[in-house]
Amino acid sequence: MVNMNDVAKKANVSRGTVSNYVNHVKIKPELAARVEKAIEELNYIPNQAARSLKKQESDIIVFILPTIWTPFFSELAYYIQLELQIQNFKMLLCNSQNDYNLELDYIKMAQEQKVKGILTISYSDIEPYLISNIPIVSIERYFNSAIPFITSDNFGGARQAAEELHKRGSKRLLLILRELPNNLGIFERMNGFIDYCTHNELEYEVYLDKGNSIDFPKRLDLFLTEKFSENCPFDGIFTVTDRYAEFVFNTFAHLPWSIPEDVQLVGFDGARSFSNQSLTISTMSQDVREIARLSVKELVEFDDSLAIQKKHILPVKFTEFKTTRKLDEK
Amino acid sequence: MVNMNDVAKKANVSRGTVSNYVNHVKIKPELAARVEKAIEELNYIPNQAARSLKKQESDIIVFILPTIWTPFFSELAYYIQLELQIQNFKMLLCNSQNDYNLELDYIKMAQEQKVKGILTISYSDIEPYLISNIPIVSIERYFNSAIPFITSDNFGGARQAAEELHKRGSKRLLLILRELPNNLGIFERMNGFIDYCTHNELEYEVYLDKGNSIDFPKRLDLFLTEKFSENCPFDGIFTVTDRYAEFVFNTFAHLPWSIPEDVQLVGFDGARSFSNQSLTISTMSQDVREIARLSVKELVEFDDSLAIQKKHILPVKFTEFKTTRKLDEK
Repeated sequence: MVNMNDVAKKANVSRGTVSNYVNHVKIKPELAARVEKAIEELNYIPNQAARSLKKQESDIIVFILPTIWTPFFSELAYYIQLELQIQNFKMLLCNSQNDYNLELDYIKMAQEQKVKGILTISYSDIEPYLISNIPIVSIERYFNSAIPFITSDNFGGARQAAEELHKRGSKRLLLILRELPNNLGIFERMNGFIDYCTHNELEYEVYLDKGNSIDFPKRLDLFLTEKFSENCPFDGIFTVTDRYAEFVFNTFAHLPWSIPEDVQLVGFDGARSFSNQSLTISTMSQDVREIARLSVKELVEFDDSLAIQKKHILPVKFTEFKTTRKLDEK
Repeated sequence: MVNMNDVAKKANVSRGTVSNYVNHVKIKPELAARVEKAIEELNYIPNQAARSLKKQESDIIVFILPTIWTPFFSELAYYIQLELQIQNFKMLLCNSQNDYNLELDYIKMAQEQKVKGILTISYSDIEPYLISNIPIVSIERYFNSAIPFITSDNFGGARQAAEELHKRGSKRLLLILRELPNNLGIFERMNGFIDYCTHNELEYEVYLDKGNSIDFPKRLDLFLTEKFSENCPFDGIFTVTDRYAEFVFNTFAHLPWSIPEDVQLVGFDGARSFSNQSLTISTMSQDVREIARLSVKELVEFDDSLAIQKKHILPVKFTEFKTTRKLDEK
C-alpha cells in the first residue's frame, strides 16, 4: 500500500511537507502542486486516523436520540444528516432508548474519539452531559445556559391547538398525555393547553397516563371506550403527539361517534413517515427542517467563550387534515 | 490533560506497557492491575484516534442506505444499531439518496477512516463497491458472489400475495410498481406475482410507472380514478411496497368502491413507523429484525478467504389487516 514516504519521494519533498499538505497546513504553492500530482499518480489515500490524531480534531458528530424508529426522529435524522453533509461532517447515530447508561457510554465514546461535537435529544438526568468537554447542542430538552438549545414552541403550539378546536366549535375538551420523566416539552404542551382553556372558560379534562409505553394504546383504548360508550362527553381532543392521536383515531373506528363530525382531534408534530406521505390527522406541525439546520449551525459554530449560549424557540403551525371541521362548518 | 506518560509514571511501568494495556495486548497481570489502578486514579481517557492508528482497526461500521426516512429503513436502522451495539460496534449513518457520487464519497471516507466494514443498501452501479478493500455486506441488492448478501424472498412473497388475494375471492388482479434502476428485488416481486397469475389462469394487468418519485402518488391517483370511475375492473390489487398501497388506499376513499368489500389490497414490507403502531393494510411482512441480525453477523464474521460468500434469502409472511377479507367470507 502506498504511504506518505512514497508520496514524498515521488514529489521530491520531505515527508513533513506531505503531512502538512494532507492536514491542510499551509505550504508553498509550488510544493503543494507537486504533492497533489504525486498523490494523484500514486492513488494515495491518507489515513484518517493518523490525520485526526495529528489535528486532534475529528469530522464526526455524535447524534444521540431515544430511537430512530419514529416518524419525527427519522425525519429529523434525515435532515440533520443532510445539513452535516453540506458542512462535510459525518453522523455517528446512537439510539439511547432513553437508557441513562447507554447515553453515558456514548458520551465516553465521543470523548475517546475526540469527536467534533454531540447533538442530543435526551430525557436522562443531566450528569452525563456535564462531564463532557465536547461541544453539545441539545434539541427539545433544556439543560442549562451553557448548552445551546433548539426547541419548538410547545406552550404556544398547544395553546393554539386548543384555540383551533374552540374556533371550530368544540366546547368540552380532552387532553391526552403520558408522564415522561424530564420531558419538559410535553408538560409545556399540557400547560399551554390548560392556559387556553382557563382563559376562555372552556371545560376540559386531562388524561395523564402513568403506565409503561408498550401497553399505553391498550389503556387509552379502554379509557376512551368507557367514556364514549353511551355519551359523547368531549367534542374536542388534543394529544401531545401525533402517535397518541393515531391511537385515538383507531379507537374511534369502533365507537358510535365520528371524527370530525362529533369529536374533533388535533395532534402535535406533523412529521411524515416518508417524504410524500399524505397525513390524516390535523396537527401542530414542528418545523423539522429548521430544527435540523439550527442544531447543526449551533454545533459547527460553537463558541465556548460565550457564557450564555443561544436558545431557539421555533414557531409551530396548525395544519388541517381530516380530523377537524372546516372553519365555516362549525 | 492526563496522558499516557502520567499513567506510566504513576503505575511505575514503561509507557509501552500502558500502551499495550490500552490496546488490549497481553501484559503481566500484576502490571495490568497497576496500570488499571493508575488509569482510575488519574481519570485517564485513552485517545481513540491514537488507538485505532496503532491497531489499524476501527470499531465503526458505515451503513449506507438510500434514506433513513421511511418506516422500513428506520426500523431496519434501529435494529442494526441494536445488533452492532451488542458487539461493541458503532454505526456511521449515511443517507445516499440513491446518488452515485454520494455513495462514492462515503466509500472513500470509509477507506480513509479504515472502518471495520460497510453495510449497504444500494441501487447504484456497482463500481464504487468494487474499489473498496473493506468488508462489505449488501442488503436487498445482489452484487456478486464475493459480497455476502441478505434479502427477503421477493419472488416467493409476491407469488404468495397473489395467492392470498385469489384464495379470498379476487379473480382480476392489478399489480402496481415503479421502475427503479438496479432494484432487482422489485422486479422479482413483479415476476413472482405474474408467475402465480399465469400458473392459475388469472386475469391480471401491470401498472408499471416510469416517472419521477415525487409525482408518483398523483399519477397513480389519476390512473386509478379513471379505471375505477364507472366500472370495477379489478377486484384485487398488489403493490410492491406498503407505501404504494397507502396511496391506493387514500385514492379509494374518493372512489365508489370499497376496500376490502369490492377490492382487496395487499402491500409488501410490513414495517411500522414506530414500534407499537397498528397497521391497516394487509401485507407480506419482511423479517426486519432477522435481516439486521444476519447482516451484522456476516459483517463481523467476514472471512475474505471464502471465494463464495453467504447468501441469505429470508421468508416473508402474509399478515392480515383490514384490506383483505377473511378466508371464510370470500
